[in-house]
Amino acid sequence: MRVPYERMHAEFVRVLEKYGFDPQRAQLCATLFAQTSLDGVYTHGLNRFPRFISNIQSGIVHVDAQPECVGKIGVIERWDGHQGVGNLTAYTCMARAIELAHENTIGVVALKNNNHWMRPGAYGLMAAQQDCIGILWTNTTPNMPPWGGKEAKLGNNPVVIAMPNGDSPLLLDVAMSLFSYGKMEMSVLQGKQLPFEGGFDEEGNLTRDPAKILKSAQPLPIGYWKGSGLSLLLDLLAASLAGGCTTYEIGQKPQGETDLSQIFVAIDLKHFPDRAQIQARIEATLADLAATTPVHAGDLVRYPGAGMQKVRKDNLENGIPVDESVWNTVCAF
Amino acid sequence: MRVPYERMHAEFVRVLEKYGFDPQRAQLCATLFAQTSLDGVYTHGLNRFPRFISNIQSGIVHVDAQPECVGKIGVIERWDGHQGVGNLTAYTCMARAIELAHENTIGVVALKNNNHWMRPGAYGLMAAQQDCIGILWTNTTPNMPPWGGKEAKLGNNPVVIAMPNGDSPLLLDVAMSLFSYGKMEMSVLQGKQLPFEGGFDEEGNLTRDPAKILKSAQPLPIGYWKGSGLSLLLDLLAASLAGGCTTYEIGQKPQGETDLSQIFVAIDLKHFPDRAQIQARIEATLADLAATTPVHAGDLVRYPGAGMQKVRKDNLENGIPVDESVWNTVCAF
Repeated sequence: MRVPYERMHAEFVRVLEKYGFDPQRAQLCATLFAQTSLDGVYTHGLNRFPRFISNIQSGIVHVDAQPECVGKIGVIERWDGHQGVGNLTAYTCMARAIELAHENTIGVVALKNNNHWMRPGAYGLMAAQQDCIGILWTNTTPNMPPWGGKEAKLGNNPVVIAMPNGDSPLLLDVAMSLFSYGKMEMSVLQGKQLPFEGGFDEEGNLTRDPAKILKSAQPLPIGYWKGSGLSLLLDLLAASLAGGCTTYEIGQKPQGETDLSQIFVAIDLKHFPDRAQIQARIEATLADLAATTPVHAGDLVRYPGAGMQKVRKDNLENGIPVDESVWNTVCAF
Repeated sequence: MRVPYERMHAEFVRVLEKYGFDPQRAQLCATLFAQTSLDGVYTHGLNRFPRFISNIQSGIVHVDAQPECVGKIGVIERWDGHQGVGNLTAYTCMARAIELAHENTIGVVALKNNNHWMRPGAYGLMAAQQDCIGILWTNTTPNMPPWGGKEAKLGNNPVVIAMPNGDSPLLLDVAMSLFSYGKMEMSVLQGKQLPFEGGFDEEGNLTRDPAKILKSAQPLPIGYWKGSGLSLLLDLLAASLAGGCTTYEIGQKPQGETDLSQIFVAIDLKHFPDRAQIQARIEATLADLAATTPVHAGDLVRYPGAGMQKVRKDNLENGIPVDESVWNTVCAF
């Protein structure tokens, strides 16, 4: 089943207004959710929407809370998300980082007390669309064991790096677990095994079964001990710069995942005197990459973000593929 | 065989002066090499020294070249390494980033045209010792295939993140390949297989044999497609900010690996009004981590950098373990 973008957007707006959003904020929040599915990131668009609504119902997400600048340390602005709407707050903070970058080449916003920001790639794209490099990451609730340990103590702490490249920006959007929770949930919905061993079952055996990993909360970090270390440092960096909660503190909260610490960095390439040469270097690298002999004949070796435009175009023309049960759930809200 | 730190340091100084270093630069360069082995990073200390000398002999490393500040874009300083001594130039640039952070909270030095910087953790430690967060990375010659491709097009682009923590700083020092080339070379020297499949042999099969991976130049990226993407973005970021060569351009150089682009970021925590709370949060997280149930009873779940002090103390007291043939090679220079 495929649903037109406008139809999905309108449905999100309807539900958000029903749950207390003012019209303007409902529009932007719905756009962020619908564009996520439009771009093919199905895990964090429509599929995530019911949980977002349930987080409003349970009082984790405060619909009317507005992010606030609470401090300035050199070029770093500290903001407090006041447990508001995760994607709207992230949007505001990325926009502010870009504004600061326009002024000073680099802008850094360190945000505390936000909720789940949904698809972080959206904020990376905002930067790239304004000729900025975007670098951002979040911590999460403990959902990944440290290397050599049995309990989930680390977050999988997604990282985004985006770079401008005309109509085809580079967009890396990766959790520090080999598979994101969204990807594993999607695989369960589709009845699929993971393509590689992605974590441990409750008996401590490596498995490709996403349901077993979701149950154990023991996904594999990327590069084993390396992703474990990266996750820890990303968490402590985010919490330190933001003056916000660490993954450990988030794990102590009775209400579940909230009060996340998130970092938004923008670097404005327009300030660089060799802007044209930077673009030429990016293009030469991407051309070299595209010329790589593929492991499987006929495949293309692609850069992160390369496939997005095509998916977006297809979904705009033919509708967004949806899981019918999730779509019906949203329509019934 | 174990060699006292002072003995190793003196030997390095002797060889460096023989190869044209002035006494002061010989001292610092020798200190950086000897401390690397002292800290247990054997791959990038003594073991790397013969190749460093051969790079001087072949004209890749210019002994007397001094790094130079060639531009300022907002808070970013651009430096040119002029193909000098990799570790001395990296030391200078990290010191400058720390100085800028003392002034402005964040300091960024983007360096072009450096040679291999040896152990990047050394520069992370410099930051941590001055109460700064240190974040740095380099690109390299193409030495890792992109995910889905057969030829080495990406660098393994090591990243360091260091955070102050009293006498036990956090120090993450990771290449984007599951195993660094140094680690694989070390395993070959020791006749050991890798603990996990670390790359492909020349027939395209995954293997734990480090010699086969060194021969194919096809190590596995951490997290497969994720490390592949991270490596690409780190390369383009470094080259763009520095106005320096990309991995692709480095791969075109007839003389081999030189003209690397490297980024040095320091963030001075002394500027943060909640410095004490930041430290308390780090300690609470590390205590929680240490309390993790280990997969193998009796093991400790440790943070990156945790074991270094103990190794350093042991090596100071009992001498640095060396591969006798490498040590004899250095003594014969």
